This record gives sequence, C-alpha cells and structure tokens, in this order.
Amino acid sequence: MFIDINCDMGESFGAYKIGEDEKIIEYITSANIACGFHAGDPVVMEKTVKLAKDHGVGVGAHPGFPDLLGYGRRMMETCPGEVQQYVLYQVGALAAFCRAHQVAMQHLKPHGALYNLAARDEKTAAEVIGAVQAYDPELILVVLAGSRLAELAEKEGLKIAREVFPDRAYLEDGRLAPRSLPGAVVHDPEQVRRRVVKLIAEGALTSIDGKEVPLQADTLCIHGDTPGAWKLAQTIREALDEAGISVAPLSRGLFA
Amino acid sequence: MFIDINCDMGESFGAYKIGEDEKIIEYITSANIACGFHAGDPVVMEKTVKLAKDHGVGVGAHPGFPDLLGYGRRMMETCPGEVQQYVLYQVGALAAFCRAHQVAMQHLKPHGALYNLAARDEKTAAEVIGAVQAYDPELILVVLAGSRLAELAEKEGLKIAREVFPDRAYLEDGRLAPRSLPGAVVHDPEQVRRRVVKLIAEGALTSIDGKEVPLQADTLCIHGDTPGAWKLAQTIREALDEAGISVAPLSRGLFA
Amino acid sequence: MFIDINCDMGESFGAYKIGEDEKIIEYITSANIACGFHAGDPVVMEKTVKLAKDHGVGVGAHPGFPDLLGYGRRMMETCPGEVQQYVLYQVGALAAFCRAHQVAMQHLKPHGALYNLAARDEKTAAEVIGAVQAYDPELILVVLAGSRLAELAEKEGLKIAREVFPDRAYLEDGRLAPRSLPGAVVHDPEQVRRRVVKLIAEGALTSIDGKEVPLQADTLCIHGDTPGAWKLAQTIREALDEAGISVAPLSRGLFA
Amino acid sequence: MFIDINCDMGESFGAYKIGEDEKIIEYITSANIACGFHAGDPVVMEKTVKLAKDHGVGVGAHPGFPDLLGYGRRMMETCPGEVQQYVLYQVGALAAFCRAHQVAMQHLKPHGALYNLAARDEKTAAEVIGAVQAYDPELILVVLAGSRLAELAEKEGLKIAREVFPDRAYLEDGRLAPRSLPGAVVHDPEQVRRRVVKLIAEGALTSIDGKEVPLQADTLCIHGDTPGAWKLAQTIREALDEAGISVAPLSRGLFA
Repeated sequence: MFIDINCDMGESFGAYKIGEDEKIIEYITSANIACGFHAGDPVVMEKTVKLAKDHGVGVGAHPGFPDLLGYGRRMMETCPGEVQQYVLYQVGALAAFCRAHQVAMQHLKPHGALYNLAARDEKTAAEVIGAVQAYDPELILVVLAGSRLAELAEKEGLKIAREVFPDRAYLEDGRLAPRSLPGAVVHDPEQVRRRVVKLIAEGALTSIDGKEVPLQADTLCIHGDTPGAWKLAQTIREALDEAGISVAPLSRGLFA
Repeated sequence: MFIDINCDMGESFGAYKIGEDEKIIEYITSANIACGFHAGDPVVMEKTVKLAKDHGVGVGAHPGFPDLLGYGRRMMETCPGEVQQYVLYQVGALAAFCRAHQVAMQHLKPHGALYNLAARDEKTAAEVIGAVQAYDPELILVVLAGSRLAELAEKEGLKIAREVFPDRAYLEDGRLAPRSLPGAVVHDPEQVRRRVVKLIAEGALTSIDGKEVPLQADTLCIHGDTPGAWKLAQTIREALDEAGISVAPLSRGLFA
Repeated sequence: MFIDINCDMGESFGAYKIGEDEKIIEYITSANIACGFHAGDPVVMEKTVKLAKDHGVGVGAHPGFPDLLGYGRRMMETCPGEVQQYVLYQVGALAAFCRAHQVAMQHLKPHGALYNLAARDEKTAAEVIGAVQAYDPELILVVLAGSRLAELAEKEGLKIAREVFPDRAYLEDGRLAPRSLPGAVVHDPEQVRRRVVKLIAEGALTSIDGKEVPLQADTLCIHGDTPGAWKLAQTIREALDEAGISVAPLSRGLFA
Repeated sequence: MFIDINCDMGESFGAYKIGEDEKIIEYITSANIACGFHAGDPVVMEKTVKLAKDHGVGVGAHPGFPDLLGYGRRMMETCPGEVQQYVLYQVGALAAFCRAHQVAMQHLKPHGALYNLAARDEKTAAEVIGAVQAYDPELILVVLAGSRLAELAEKEGLKIAREVFPDRAYLEDGRLAPRSLPGAVVHDPEQVRRRVVKLIAEGALTSIDGKEVPLQADTLCIHGDTPGAWKLAQTIREALDEAGISVAPLSRGLFA
C-alpha cells in the first residue's frame, strides 16, 4: 500500500517569492513544478528541479494558462488546439531542466483553472490527454479523483494518479465541497490525520454532511502557497508513518 | 562539398504575422524556429516544426532574450546563469514539438541581441555553450564565422556550423561590415550569386574595400523577416545548383 | 443628421504590424486606439494619437483584456473590480499621449471579448461604466446598439454612442447574426452602401431573414484588421456623402 | 527647513507580494508607485494610490523598463524615443487612479536600471525630461543628487528634488559607493540617525573614506523591498523629529 504526496512548487517569479519550497520538500514525494506560464521562470525551474532531485522527490510538470497576472487561476477561453500546444510547450521547457540534471520527468498535473476545466470539460480533457500522448505516453497524469478527465484518461490507457485533498471536505457524490460552504476547508490537524488514514486504509471519506464516500486516492495534494503548508505536510506524513502506510513517489510506488 | 541554408522561422505571435514561412521553406535546408521569448508561440511553434518536417528541413531552436516588445533585438543585461537557463527553457519547449512530430532537433542558433552578444562576449558564450552541453552535446551550434563563440565552442568540442551572410559585406578582418557603411547590404542578385559561389568554392569573400577575405561557411543565413526574402533564397539556391554545390541540412551534409 | 465612422487602430506591437492605419484614417472620424493590453505599445500609441490628430479624427481609448497572445479576443474570467482597474489603467495610459499632443480624449470603446462581455453581462458592464465615471463622466462610451451595456450606461446618465456594423447581418431582435450563419457578413459593396444609407436615413436595417429591424446608429464600425478595410470605409464614406449625410467625429456631431 | 521621505510602493503583482506598504506608509511622505512595467498591476496601483491618499502621502509615478522578470533592475538597450514613450505611458496609467481618487500626481521617479541610466546617460536623461515636459512641466522629478540628470533637468527649468540614500555610503566626489565596497551599506541605526541629521542640518555627509562631502538632500529614499524597511523609516523619522526638522511631502514642503 503506497501513497504519494504532491505539492505545487517553483511558483516564484523573478524577484517575487511564493511558497516555502525548501521546507515543504522534506515531507512530500512528488513536486509539481510551474513552467513559466502562470508562475515560475527558467532560473526558478532549474533550481526547483535540482531541489527535487536532491531530495529524491519525483519531478512533474505543472502547466497552466498563460496568465501570470491571474496566477493561472482564471478561466480563459482558448481556440481548439491551443491547450494541447500550451501543455506541450511547458512540459518540454521543464524537461530541458530534467535533462540537464539527469532526472526523468515523472508526471504532469495541470494547474489552477486549467486543472478545473480539464476535470470537467471533455474538449479540454482531450487536449491535455493529447499532449501527454504526443510527448510521452508513459508520463503519469495526476487527475482529480472522480473527474471526467480521470475517466477519459483511463479509457485512453494513460497512467493516471487520482488526487485527493486531505484538508478539503467532499460532497456525497465525491466532488469537492465548494469553498463557500462552511466546513469546506478542514483546519484541525487531528481531523486531517484521521481523514488521511481512513482514506488510505479504507478508500473512503466522510462527506461534509456525514455520508460515507468511497474515494480512491493515489496521491494527496498539499497546497504549497498557503502559509504553513509544510506543517500540514508534516502532520500528514506523521499520520501515514504511524499508520504504517508507505509514502513514495508515484514512479516508485503506484507505478513501480 | 555541402552547404546548408538557414532561415529564421516561426516568428509570428498570436494574431501577428511575420515572415513568409510557407514560401521560403522551399529553398532552405535548416529552420531556426523562434521559441516564444522574442517571438513565436506554442501554436506557431507546432505548425512550424511540422512545416519543416514536411519539407525535409532541419529543425533548430532559435532562443532569444525575453523581450517580445523588442523582438529580441535589444541588448539586455542578465545575471550570471540566466542566459543558460533561458536557452535551456526555450530549447526544451521546442523539443516538445519535435517529439510530438518525431523529428530530431538538429541545431541551435541564438537570436538577435543574444546572437550578437554571444558572438563577442565570453561569459555569454560560455552560458550558451553550457546550455548545449547540458541539453545535448550532439546538438549543432550555429555560430557567426570568425566569432569568439566559434572559437570557444570548438575548443569545448561542440559541433559547430559557421554562418555567413550572403547579402552582407564583410570587413578585411572577417567581421560583418556595419549596416551604417555604404555597401554593407548587397542588393544586386547577380552580385549575391557570384559571392555565394566564390564563398563555397574558394572559401573566400571580397571585402567591402576590395580585399580577399578567407571565410569558412558551413551555412548561409537568409533573413526571413525582410520582404521578398524567399526570392533571395531562390537566387542563392539556383546559383548553388548551377555551380554543382550540394545543398543539404547540417545533419545530412556537414555532420552526416 | 450626423454619423460617425469608427475603426480600431494602433494595434501593431513592436516589430509586429497589423492594420493599414495610414490608409484608413482618411475615411474615418473616430479612432479606437489599442492601449497595450491586447495590442499596441507606447511607441505605437504615440504615433497613432498623432496620426488621428493630424487628420482631425476623434481619439478614443480601446481597452481590452490583458491577453496579447489572444489579441483580446478570448473571454477571461476576472475577479470583482479587476475590469474597472484594467480599463482605468489603459484609458490613463492613452490619455498621457493625448496630453502630450494636446488633444482631448473623445471616447472609450472596449475591445473584443471585453466588448462582447460588457454588452451582455451586467457585472462587467457596471465595471466599464464605473471606470468612465471615475475617469471622466463626460467621456463618450461607444456601445453595441441594443445591448444591456447601452441600457445601463444610459440609465447612469453617460454619453453613449450606439454602434452598428455596416457589413454584418442582424437578427430580427436587433442582435448581430452569428458569423456561423450564411450571409452573416455582407461582402457586396453595393449592398453595404444601401444598408448604410437606409440605416441612417430610416433608422432601420433589413434582418438576415428579411424583416425590418429598427436600429439607432450613432457610429458605424469598420474592422481595421481585415485586409482591404480601407476600401469598405471608402465605399461607406462615398455612400454617405452622396446621400447628403454629414460624417463627423462624435464630439463634433452627436455631442457637439 | 523641510525634508521629504520617499519610498517605492505598490510593487506587488497579482498573487505576488513585495514590500510592507501598510507599515511603511506611516513613516514616509512621498510614495513612488510602480506602474505595471517592472512591477505593479492595475489593482495594486489603485489600492496604493488610495493608501497614499488616506495617509496624506504624496503620490508619484515610478516608471521602469518593461522587464517584470528582472524587476526593472536590468539595463536594457532601447531605440531613440522608446524611453520617453515608456515613461509617458506609465505616468498616464497611474494618473488614471489619481483622477479616480481625486489626488494630484506630485512627482515622478524612474525605477532601477532606468533610474541609474537616466542619472548618467544624457540621451536617456533627455527622454525622461521630455516625458515630464510633455505630460506636465509642473511635475516634480526626483533625481539622484549630483547626477547628470539633476543638472540637465535643472537647466531645463524642471522642478527637481535631489535624492539621498541615508543608509548608503558615498564617495568623496558625491557619488554612491558601490555596494561591493565594504561599508557601502550603513546598517547601524545610530549611525543612520547621525548621518541624516547632519545631512539636513549641515548639507553634508562624511564619505566612506572620512572626507566631508557637501550634498543637497531634498528627499531621503527608503528601499521598501528590503525586509524591515519600515523600521529604518521609523528611525529616520524619529531622528528628524528630535532634531526639529519638518518632514513633509515635496509638494507641501520644498515646493509649497
């Protein structure tokens, strides 16, 4: 029984710093590295690939919409084909730093608005899948558990890793509870511990209204841009260690 | 006896068009494809890689400074290491489209101000060389004939292709005559023909003040963004054909 | 009886050229000048303000979404308040060149996706209106005839100019016929002439399915980025002259 | 006897935060607000203008090179006229927010590499001066004390405010000691206090090698992007208060 812990990294840009990458890298097993469209720049990318390599953390591309001003969180309309080329461009850019540091690229996880859109919109999902197939069909695609993208990517034979958010509440149907709902974000570390262990051990969560929700988790997501994220990561890591659950990068666990 | 003809391509951006790529591709053997920093975008890059592949034209990365507003033609100060990471980023981005279309990347040629700076400045040259070594030491580096970069790259054991401009006059010492000098640009097609044939057959040019200048040319550069560039390419191609000089991409000629 | 003819201008960017501003300026009375977000740059803006002034053409701001790659044509999600500040920023930037050339800014017309969104979405409309009120309540706002923005701006007491597209077909309800419908774009110059004269003289158009559609036109829009746009402008100008309809900038006609 | 204290502000961008504007605003009298080229965005600019107005702090434009990635700190080559239009564009953009909040724009201070280049290069200085003259000849130009820009702007009859850095050492000839020299940055608060009081009271500083350097200071610069900058501002403010030196914005002190 393996679980991966992933976190967005390398989201600084020039003089602008975001995230505590050096701290959080200690507790995670896969790094989603920004590729210069919504965040990140070539110097930051190089450093972050090196940081991940030095800690034995799996390197993944974290492509987003070309919207630095909106940090890739704003939905953008695109013309057919644009998303596929945007993803290819960004994956390739990161791959150059992997090559320079002789690490294999492990996975790809879309960022922000692109992640959300790909999760539910078939056309966008198809373009993300198309990019993986065109670049490297062996690349693991990190997807929202229970999403349309998860279904479609699986049908296409891609290697997928289903992602669950340990500090977020879920609805009865397995979808994330909107942040506007009271209790949508779980702040109590003790509760996060219990949820995580139950999730891995039983493959289920308790929904925001108390129902049992079956949910397959291959990787847990930590939001690196929230202050103190590394503490949440530490909490989760400890809970998993205590429960005897192995924590490993996707390529050495799920797809070893 | 082989010669390559290279041209900058894929320099359109979104709704903005530059160059007559579809016409000029008929006459050249190597395409320097812009990588999104000074020009080009993911959609344009994908199309241009495909266009080059369809015409048997060698694909090369054409990285520039991050200055779309200045088209990469303005000198920019950078911090140590930045040029190397900028080049790696752009080479990787283009490589993704090569991978998607299953073509090998043949060469790398810096653009505009980066080309000029790397030609004469040792630190910049070292970073460009470092990027090639980190990415793929087999990548051919296109350099200004007679430049400091040519020397340094050769010393490092890189594969280099020396570039000459058939429609530009040269000084006695083998450097390009500044555009401000009368006669710096050769407009007469007949004169261009003679210069090109002499250059390849004899390894020499007549300088702007009538001296014989020995100059080794591995590749001839056509400026794709000047209107009617394809006619110059056609003229040169015909001259080479008539003189019985083989025209081939660097990877199938010089480095076959 | 006055009519204004407006056209988007100054949409070049650095080395990239779009539009035939020098030709079309002869036939129009109001210029919507791009402000650097979706197109345009400071050098282009300065030149375009001067060009408009030299031809007695009214100067207007043409703000768009911050999306140079998509030319401002792609819908973008924004957070509350962002559109208002984006519009203010761009209007102010153009105003600096008006000040340098001692011309008054006449009008404001949103561009592309922002224009379309403001036309139908109340929140976006309110932010555009808010920007005009905050900057200068005397600024004329160019709006799609029959749009929600037209209604709301009028209710707020703004000076509005209703815009009609002389080469576009309309639906029975006064909305533009989608470009996907056959006949949505009117290509025949003779037909454009008749439509324009009828529109101004009778305040009506014939819809795509032959119905009479009342439509108040204060300004006619020419799309400057379609090749040969200046010929369409010339045709319209001639038709108006022959029909004895005065053509004048909004500030010297409608709001004189 | 008046002195102004200025600080760069509004240098955040989208999700990226830089500076502690809310703290430092308490101790300064003039704010140099980034205008979106090297830092800042429309939302940040609006907030920062409001913040300055609420604290009675003079609002100034802080234009930089179009280089967000390099935070405007990297020298860039420009074509003749570009600097003037870049400055006009940015001043105008900020002016829109001044207009929306009904505050007058007080001053203009170039940022980073543009500041340094304008200080010593006559062509760049002439373009900055040209922008002020074209926009509003009454705008106060903040210049490095003893610089070529100071001389030229004064000769042109502009209102200038000479800027001194209270935590930086100076050479015997009145120029800033390069940061590479030991002692170039003064860290001891007590020493900063003494230097500031001497500077205002006697119009002189002690140079890095112990010489008396006459230096006219109209405004003191605090670097807002160094952590704890507000404490330095507080220290300086206290020293000035104790010495009975009036601290006021340029428009209410020097140019009242």
